[in-house]
Amino acid sequence: MNLTMKETAAKLKAAEKILVTAHIHPDGDAIGSTLSMWLALRQLGKSAQIYLDDVIPTNLLFLPHVDAIKRPTADEKFDADLLVVLDTSTDRIGKVAAMTDAPILNIDHHVTNSNKDDNDLYLEHDAAATCEIMLALCHELGVEVTKEIATCIYTGIVTDTGFFNYSCTTSKTFHAAAELVDLGVEPNYISEQIEKRTLADVKVMSAALQTMQLYFDGKVAGMFIDAEIEKMADTTEGLVDLIRVINTVEIAFILRYQDEKTCRASLRSKGMDVSKIAKSLGGGGHIRAAGCTLHTNFDDAKNILLKTLGEYFKA
Amino acid sequence: MNLTMKETAAKLKAAEKILVTAHIHPDGDAIGSTLSMWLALRQLGKSAQIYLDDVIPTNLLFLPHVDAIKRPTADEKFDADLLVVLDTSTDRIGKVAAMTDAPILNIDHHVTNSNKDDNDLYLEHDAAATCEIMLALCHELGVEVTKEIATCIYTGIVTDTGFFNYSCTTSKTFHAAAELVDLGVEPNYISEQIEKRTLADVKVMSAALQTMQLYFDGKVAGMFIDAEIEKMADTTEGLVDLIRVINTVEIAFILRYQDEKTCRASLRSKGMDVSKIAKSLGGGGHIRAAGCTLHTNFDDAKNILLKTLGEYFKA
Repeated sequence: MNLTMKETAAKLKAAEKILVTAHIHPDGDAIGSTLSMWLALRQLGKSAQIYLDDVIPTNLLFLPHVDAIKRPTADEKFDADLLVVLDTSTDRIGKVAAMTDAPILNIDHHVTNSNKDDNDLYLEHDAAATCEIMLALCHELGVEVTKEIATCIYTGIVTDTGFFNYSCTTSKTFHAAAELVDLGVEPNYISEQIEKRTLADVKVMSAALQTMQLYFDGKVAGMFIDAEIEKMADTTEGLVDLIRVINTVEIAFILRYQDEKTCRASLRSKGMDVSKIAKSLGGGGHIRAAGCTLHTNFDDAKNILLKTLGEYFKA
Repeated sequence: MNLTMKETAAKLKAAEKILVTAHIHPDGDAIGSTLSMWLALRQLGKSAQIYLDDVIPTNLLFLPHVDAIKRPTADEKFDADLLVVLDTSTDRIGKVAAMTDAPILNIDHHVTNSNKDDNDLYLEHDAAATCEIMLALCHELGVEVTKEIATCIYTGIVTDTGFFNYSCTTSKTFHAAAELVDLGVEPNYISEQIEKRTLADVKVMSAALQTMQLYFDGKVAGMFIDAEIEKMADTTEGLVDLIRVINTVEIAFILRYQDEKTCRASLRSKGMDVSKIAKSLGGGGHIRAAGCTLHTNFDDAKNILLKTLGEYFKA
């Protein structure tokens, strides 16, 4: 059932023992929304606990009270009267799903959230981030937005909007940012923390750039994370943007070795629909960001991908 | 004489033939503020012309009416009754200074603007960008902020704040951004334009990353643009940030070959005062961003720089 913000606040106020979670492979919005929710609930005098079935990305460990986030052990249970699922539909929360039978309150901004189990759902798909919803929800709950809460919320907003650069950024997003800065948030401190990289990340960036190739009169650019580079790579996130920005490029891709029979391709465009291309190779995604898994060796995967792209760029 | 915003608006309203300019080596704030000023003045029925003594960076050529910006030829004159100097003190406008004897109206946000010739000056040093001032000035002038004006102003704000990431970003900056988005600005379109790179830029980035070295237990990271890489390089702007973000790094530098007897060092820190280091080598700058010119060959320059940095990092 779809809830209004007022009803959502009422559900939270009625509960006493609340388990808070978000999606696996957590990003700044998942972590920021769980921490701000936990801080808000504690301010309201609730007993609340965050469980997340994954590791926290290193560059988010600066967030206040991040140590309060627990990872469930096998078969661990938690005595709760409400399970709050943030920033995802309820099928991406890993082992947390089995921790409690408490009713679910789902708060999300993803338009793809189909709520197929008909949980209580507050969905605001034009919010740039779940953290943007969290700010309004704090007001609805009468929670004082402390600098700590503001820092968590701001982090979710900047990570989900690519520092206000993605098309999901609205004037509401900027109004929220203005309010958060007035509450003590330091944009330069937060961006410095989020943009921290390991030496290995930078070496992978360097190695990946060396493999760059242009195709089809410079309209396509590719990078190749083969087995050797893959060994060094913690993450390849963001790398494809380094070549997507080339002025002639319409589609950029990165091909990443997984094992001898598996490769992963990520496609990014400036407007062309790459989800179609990914779909034709068994994958999917959005218009400007899509991906697919190719069940073959690295050289064959490269050839298949280039042949498919060629169909879109032949004269 | 320091003017209020009301007096600044009055000066503009009183003039009829207005020459608008900004600093050489123009950035998004220089170009954005001249174009938005020109559009505002034309809306007020003024005769206005922009002259700028430099080339426009390629990634700003998307701005509306950028073709209206002229570059002065030698000894060119312009019949004006007001010279509006934006985003700089009046000593960095190149040949435009000699184009007219009209009184000067200077509008700037740089705290270093000393106004030594005592011109009419509107200085708001806590504005994140001259374009942030331009938005308030449009309101003061009763100018309708069209999508074109808003796009120019937004571009100046994002380039001077590093997309809202520098410490100059305030809640006022975010309120301005919110207003500009409501006026039609598309953040993702503008960032896509600004972040465009040439293939040569990306190749220089790749080559520069290959030269990366860490020193003093990883507290210092350096990149080396020698004569060979320098030949390819259009700009090296932003490259040093690729290594400044490494988690162990406190100071990052880039050393760039200029000629057989000249090298240029740029230093960036996460908090340490690099202006001191630059100053000790004959340069200067800000706490987190400084630079100096070393009048020697590349190898010697590298040794001198590392020796100087070593004094700050010895046990």
